[in-house]
Amino acid sequence: MLKKILIANRGEIAVRIVRACAEMGIRSVAIHTEPDRHALHVKRADEAYSMGDDPLAGYLDARRIVNLAVETGCDAIHPGYGFLSENSEFARICEERNIAFIGPKADVILKMGDKTAARKSMIAAGVPVTPGSEDNLANLDEAIELANNIGYPVMLKATSGGGGRGIRRCDSEKELKEQYPRVISEATKAFGSAEVFLEKCILDPKHIEVQILADSQGSAIHLYERDCSIQRRNQKLIEIAPSPQLTPEQRSYVGELAVKAAKAVGYENAGTVEFLVTGNDIYFMEMNTRVQVEHTITEQITGVDIVREQIRIASGLPLSYRQEDISFRGFALQFRINAEDPKNNFLPSFGRITRYYAPGGPGVRTDTAIYTGYTIPPYFDSMCLKLVVWALTWEDTLDRGARALADMRLQGIKTTANYYQEILKNDEFRSGHFNTSFVPNHPELLNYSDKRAPSEIALAIAAAIAAHAGV
Amino acid sequence: MLKKILIANRGEIAVRIVRACAEMGIRSVAIHTEPDRHALHVKRADEAYSMGDDPLAGYLDARRIVNLAVETGCDAIHPGYGFLSENSEFARICEERNIAFIGPKADVILKMGDKTAARKSMIAAGVPVTPGSEDNLANLDEAIELANNIGYPVMLKATSGGGGRGIRRCDSEKELKEQYPRVISEATKAFGSAEVFLEKCILDPKHIEVQILADSQGSAIHLYERDCSIQRRNQKLIEIAPSPQLTPEQRSYVGELAVKAAKAVGYENAGTVEFLVTGNDIYFMEMNTRVQVEHTITEQITGVDIVREQIRIASGLPLSYRQEDISFRGFALQFRINAEDPKNNFLPSFGRITRYYAPGGPGVRTDTAIYTGYTIPPYFDSMCLKLVVWALTWEDTLDRGARALADMRLQGIKTTANYYQEILKNDEFRSGHFNTSFVPNHPELLNYSDKRAPSEIALAIAAAIAAHAGV
Repeated sequence: MLKKILIANRGEIAVRIVRACAEMGIRSVAIHTEPDRHALHVKRADEAYSMGDDPLAGYLDARRIVNLAVETGCDAIHPGYGFLSENSEFARICEERNIAFIGPKADVILKMGDKTAARKSMIAAGVPVTPGSEDNLANLDEAIELANNIGYPVMLKATSGGGGRGIRRCDSEKELKEQYPRVISEATKAFGSAEVFLEKCILDPKHIEVQILADSQGSAIHLYERDCSIQRRNQKLIEIAPSPQLTPEQRSYVGELAVKAAKAVGYENAGTVEFLVTGNDIYFMEMNTRVQVEHTITEQITGVDIVREQIRIASGLPLSYRQEDISFRGFALQFRINAEDPKNNFLPSFGRITRYYAPGGPGVRTDTAIYTGYTIPPYFDSMCLKLVVWALTWEDTLDRGARALADMRLQGIKTTANYYQEILKNDEFRSGHFNTSFVPNHPELLNYSDKRAPSEIALAIAAAIAAHAGV
Repeated sequence: MLKKILIANRGEIAVRIVRACAEMGIRSVAIHTEPDRHALHVKRADEAYSMGDDPLAGYLDARRIVNLAVETGCDAIHPGYGFLSENSEFARICEERNIAFIGPKADVILKMGDKTAARKSMIAAGVPVTPGSEDNLANLDEAIELANNIGYPVMLKATSGGGGRGIRRCDSEKELKEQYPRVISEATKAFGSAEVFLEKCILDPKHIEVQILADSQGSAIHLYERDCSIQRRNQKLIEIAPSPQLTPEQRSYVGELAVKAAKAVGYENAGTVEFLVTGNDIYFMEMNTRVQVEHTITEQITGVDIVREQIRIASGLPLSYRQEDISFRGFALQFRINAEDPKNNFLPSFGRITRYYAPGGPGVRTDTAIYTGYTIPPYFDSMCLKLVVWALTWEDTLDRGARALADMRLQGIKTTANYYQEILKNDEFRSGHFNTSFVPNHPELLNYSDKRAPSEIALAIAAAIAAHAGV
């Protein structure tokens, strides 16, 4: 078993990994840049080291981080998500320096990060992919011919792209002609590669992803799926496990596809295979070769501690479970509480948390690095808390979500919490049938008030008067 | 379904009930006495009413509470635990005023509160009870004869007693002769009844209790058992579900016995049947006719929301589950975090909470009414927080418990948290085999330091220096 792990990340995921280490009797080492010197992951880890003043550079300096791991006697690095987590060079340097990288091998990261190579691997393995290029596009003429074959709309994508960048939708040949040079230019600037490919645009799909675990002995299992269709501009807002809108047959099918995909590329450690689902069609979208923000909801329904399994796998141990050991129970929802003002176009709202009170009671889990008095630095992601609720039935889970959001106190900044309350009241959402167009199709859900309702205030006053009178 | 519930309680259980109401769309009404005017249950309920200046009287005034429920348009009262929860007169007044009492009928509370009557009912139903009196003792001679028949040591108990009072152990005829008049005198003073009975003293038993649910249509189910053997002076400290030390056969047997006991007395709502287990013998001890402090751990392993079920049952609805729908998964531990100083004979340590940070992450649940800045009033129970952890295996649950206790920050008062860390390190406890003598048999577990270990401080300093140097 690994003995000392450097956590190459910050925020809630760094705290999550510190907790897993603590439970496993493994020493944890935090790193931080200057704005994070009072961050919770620094306070909770067994050791913490500064990576300098620049807010971001220290979290992205692969060589320096691996050096620090070696110097402090660590035998592994957990990359979390974001930052260097899908950087194959980082994994390669770890391999070189004999530090276990808690994730897949460098060549697998590289292959799955190259979207054309990933598509090819999936086609070879018999995993259905969206109709589109078999390889990178040679030129505009090839793009036009292919688009005519598969039919508009199509998506033009940067082969090395990700995070919603380097992607354009084209509804006609005219648009394809316009966008082609733009995507190449954007891809060159952002990812250092001019390679692009083309896929059929799946309209109003459901975003379904499968959590997988694979060990170094060649075993791979899935932990069922998550439904991440509630997104805004490719950013997930509320995630659900299991999907309330898959048939049992579809559930088995995507689970098996994900395991097939993982085995096809020699995958090791935890990963997520993302699919687009429309009607009865299921298409491979991409594979995320790291722990996902929303791994929490899979933990809630299956009981499996995914970060613990990641560490066990990187220690060379076999999986703790066979596929037949994995079952799921109830429903879990994760609300990404972002420091943003939804009523002001989701403008980031960084600043000092004047009060934070964690919601409690049955079926509630929080993962966060904030605390009362903490100032959210403006240099990082706006997600400041993950609120997860669980209950045996879909309806009860929705009601528990509304209760937990109301129970929480998070003052000093604007957040997305009140917006999620509106989503929870929406009949379409409550019916469990929605797709990635839900958020753009429901701008009216932004028409809420951040103030308490007058009726509520009146009742509070009435109660206060009665209380004063002693009844 | 009930529409508005008055909560005749305070502290964490009142908050628990407010949360259940919020999830069910039911309006909640809190009551409070003067020292509780800033209490969390008052802040979180939809309405709150003062019951006067005396710290306790307002929570014990049955008529006034029922009057308030009627005046404020409530259709039900939830009594929580303690206070009036097992007062049959309170339930009777509710029945009289057409307010649903969220618990069993008054005559069932009365019968189970009379320990001799409860024993008789159990014997009639075929539930094994500890060898002892069939009825109240007529005189000392009868006591001596009975004790000679069943063998010493014996327990002399007040028929109307409870909470560890009016109970004396007698190891010989000499002691029985001494204690007999004392117990009668104590019983008369404390419970207004001179009736006593006698039972064989079960040495070093395990305390096993079964959660049951029964509806008004006559259905009754069990939600498996809890192991509450970790006690100090009859006060539970750490509760576990399921028991790590029952065989599957014993588990089925106690579950069936509990359902049989509930049906025999026409039980309705949630209740707990307590047993003493020694070797292969299982004896009925008593039935608690209310929600239990430790209902939380049963919720964690079964997924069933017990307070929600209580409210549904009191609404006249059938149980949401059949026995075959109930399964359990993993292990849950509850640590009762008491405002006490274990190193000073568990002296209460009330005062202002200067800092409270709730532990988070996977498998952690908190139920509490405290918050940063809250002052714990000295008039009530010392339990200030329930920390529940859950994981798939016994070992992982223990490790998660240690992590969550360390993760929590609760400053300004002394608590039992550090003492529980010592219990978690003990091999006997970790083996899962222990009985009610565990705490008295391990006084050495109190030899811990509330200060951080010097090695920890040294490492923290080393890390700080390294951080300063920028490594």
